[in-house]
Amino acid sequence: MKRSLISIDDLSTKEINQIHDLALQYYQAKNDHQKELNNKLLVNLFFENSTRTRTSFEIAAKRLGAKVVNIDIALSSLKKGESIIDTAKTINAMNPDFMVCRHNASGIFNLLEKYFSCPLINAGDGTNEHPTQALLDSFVIKRHKGELKNLTIAICGDTLHSRVARSNLKLLNKFGAKIRVITAPTLITKDYKNWLKNNYHAELYESLALGIKDVDVVMMLRIQQERMTSDYLPSLSEYFKLYGLAHQQLKFAKKDALVMHPGPINREVEISSLLADDKKISLILDQVEAGVVIRQAVLKFYNI
Amino acid sequence: MKRSLISIDDLSTKEINQIHDLALQYYQAKNDHQKELNNKLLVNLFFENSTRTRTSFEIAAKRLGAKVVNIDIALSSLKKGESIIDTAKTINAMNPDFMVCRHNASGIFNLLEKYFSCPLINAGDGTNEHPTQALLDSFVIKRHKGELKNLTIAICGDTLHSRVARSNLKLLNKFGAKIRVITAPTLITKDYKNWLKNNYHAELYESLALGIKDVDVVMMLRIQQERMTSDYLPSLSEYFKLYGLAHQQLKFAKKDALVMHPGPINREVEISSLLADDKKISLILDQVEAGVVIRQAVLKFYNI
Amino acid sequence: MKRSLISIDDLSTKEINQIHDLALQYYQAKNDHQKELNNKLLVNLFFENSTRTRTSFEIAAKRLGAKVVNIDIALSSLKKGESIIDTAKTINAMNPDFMVCRHNASGIFNLLEKYFSCPLINAGDGTNEHPTQALLDSFVIKRHKGELKNLTIAICGDTLHSRVARSNLKLLNKFGAKIRVITAPTLITKDYKNWLKNNYHAELYESLALGIKDVDVVMMLRIQQERMTSDYLPSLSEYFKLYGLAHQQLKFAKKDALVMHPGPINREVEISSLLADDKKISLILDQVEAGVVIRQAVLKFYNI
Repeated sequence: MKRSLISIDDLSTKEINQIHDLALQYYQAKNDHQKELNNKLLVNLFFENSTRTRTSFEIAAKRLGAKVVNIDIALSSLKKGESIIDTAKTINAMNPDFMVCRHNASGIFNLLEKYFSCPLINAGDGTNEHPTQALLDSFVIKRHKGELKNLTIAICGDTLHSRVARSNLKLLNKFGAKIRVITAPTLITKDYKNWLKNNYHAELYESLALGIKDVDVVMMLRIQQERMTSDYLPSLSEYFKLYGLAHQQLKFAKKDALVMHPGPINREVEISSLLADDKKISLILDQVEAGVVIRQAVLKFYNI
Repeated sequence: MKRSLISIDDLSTKEINQIHDLALQYYQAKNDHQKELNNKLLVNLFFENSTRTRTSFEIAAKRLGAKVVNIDIALSSLKKGESIIDTAKTINAMNPDFMVCRHNASGIFNLLEKYFSCPLINAGDGTNEHPTQALLDSFVIKRHKGELKNLTIAICGDTLHSRVARSNLKLLNKFGAKIRVITAPTLITKDYKNWLKNNYHAELYESLALGIKDVDVVMMLRIQQERMTSDYLPSLSEYFKLYGLAHQQLKFAKKDALVMHPGPINREVEISSLLADDKKISLILDQVEAGVVIRQAVLKFYNI
Repeated sequence: MKRSLISIDDLSTKEINQIHDLALQYYQAKNDHQKELNNKLLVNLFFENSTRTRTSFEIAAKRLGAKVVNIDIALSSLKKGESIIDTAKTINAMNPDFMVCRHNASGIFNLLEKYFSCPLINAGDGTNEHPTQALLDSFVIKRHKGELKNLTIAICGDTLHSRVARSNLKLLNKFGAKIRVITAPTLITKDYKNWLKNNYHAELYESLALGIKDVDVVMMLRIQQERMTSDYLPSLSEYFKLYGLAHQQLKFAKKDALVMHPGPINREVEISSLLADDKKISLILDQVEAGVVIRQAVLKFYNI
């Protein structure tokens, strides 16, 4: 029976560990091409532009021998007035083996999933989830720090609007990591605070210095620059002063603390250039590399 | 010697049956990947955007083992002032094995075809022809209704501007089907009426109720929504009332009448949502699925 | 150890001959698909649009069995504020085997190259270089005229702004060809004249008739039509009268002189239609065909 990966909720900790183990095998055989998905067809259906995620899935699929068809729906029949459900049904009638989908509407894949006979892999839906990002982030953390449950991990930035944060919160919580959320008071709502409190053992901080005290890992989030011109935050430099991460702030964390970012990064906004490029501390490129092998593992895991 | 598929006129009924037979084989082996076109290169050269047709050809080619290069000419050297003939000659010099082309100028492939050393497959030229659509539509009808010559088939909508209608008219006429054309008086010209009368044994109807009386199949056509704001038709809802198809109107047709639409559909404009989704009557998704295997068959048939 | 192809300076004459010999083998096996680069991944990273060059590399790679991922960076995360270096590092972290890059900034690949663990092939950088174009142009000349060193070759047009001219100047000079540069006084600067004089044994001409006297080959350059509206040149027809090439002007050249153009051509601006289509004289389509096999040879040569 087919399954889809729409949310981290869809996976047990055991299954996440299986995916991590598979990814490790692909990681160790890094540039090897496999034939495990020969004669399988993956469709990248992106309603929102993305270089890194689309490319990562495309490379993952091709390394496994699958064929890939990219559909950039911005250029397509949606303009001709077709409903998204009809688009889904149409592509499904062409019998793909995997659908990898991104859309700017949160939760839309719960609706679309039932129109596909094959697994749907969520490559990001609005501010809701980005499960393969959380799978790769936790894979990188485990490789550097061992088991998640013994770690204290801070997620810092615009968590309210971040699908990366949401998927990571769910995954880290499943494994019993101690989670801290660091965010500006203007970037959070009362509802979100309650949701956090009721569902996750996450502590909320408004101060970066306090929030990263003694943490093992800091996950920085991307700030949408267009948001900066609105009422959320005064300016980019002000944001950097309060919530940007540099070596100086990191001294409050554990001595061997590591820094992550899902990219693309805004240098001197979320993170200092020096820290982003510090290979002893920054895992940013490890995350990109892990992205390909995690997606190989996900395709292998969901293959029917 | 190479041949091209520019018009349904290019094929005899015997050849169309051969393509249908090939398609049936691919249909029965639905998700199988073949190696018949291994080491062949297909170029999708689209001067007009299309998700469904481009994707359908791409999947068809890849299922047969061919390599595919997509060229979206909207983003290309036409902008640099290159003539379309020079574009054709340039791509031909790269030695493709198949050219699949779409363009908004009717009849342009009669001009371009001679610049290609390989077969050119017409994926839609203006309001002229879309031969693979007619091949797939007739394939679907035959699978559900048997021989075409015993059937009465109504084509309903903006036939004057529809390449799908024109290719289907030609194909159905070849096989001796009884054809009815149902269209609004504002969507037809005197010249077109004469062309129909002189070339095809097609009856013309202005009333949907009369036109679909006792038919076996109704082929709905897509309405370009932008046309609705012009002088052709008063409004979308007015069009739907007069020429839109719902269960209610279909009762005039034969009891087991089936409904087709080349997509993308405008729900509640050409067809009611309930009817479009009625799996006992609507063949819309069958058509999409058949599109891939028909294009596999066409590539196999024209392979040199 | 990996090497890149950023400039013709990166190659010795011996290596250029090796690439030409490899290309000849591919040329003789024209439509054959090879497996030499099976399991290799090429990324086409284009910051500037291009149909012909991107397609040529894509076909070359696929004919050798490599997998290709196209990234059109105009649609990508550069818009999200990511620096080009971060884009390079990100793609490199996905472990490609070849990077083929085009960008409108001259010299940028000297900067980017160090961020890639695999060979970077320059597919055009601003007004600087387009080395595979020079490799293919010289390949075509050698096939028709034999050794380069005995030839007199005129490069005609907007050399100052032409990366094609710059790469050809370097390559032809390496092989000891007699080079003439023909250009309008408004399309050249004093600095460029000095650079030419100091580095290349090239003679400068303002008159087309004098410049092509007794030459073996005339390489025409593309004129950016948008430049015509600026102060550089009075009008397209004026340019054609003075620097456009037709049979009439060609009579000053050697009797068996041949004509080249990198395309896309502006007919009746740089070259008359009759001459462009004269198969006995015009090598334009030979150049396109050679483009694919030269790029196959380059990929084979730089493969690690």
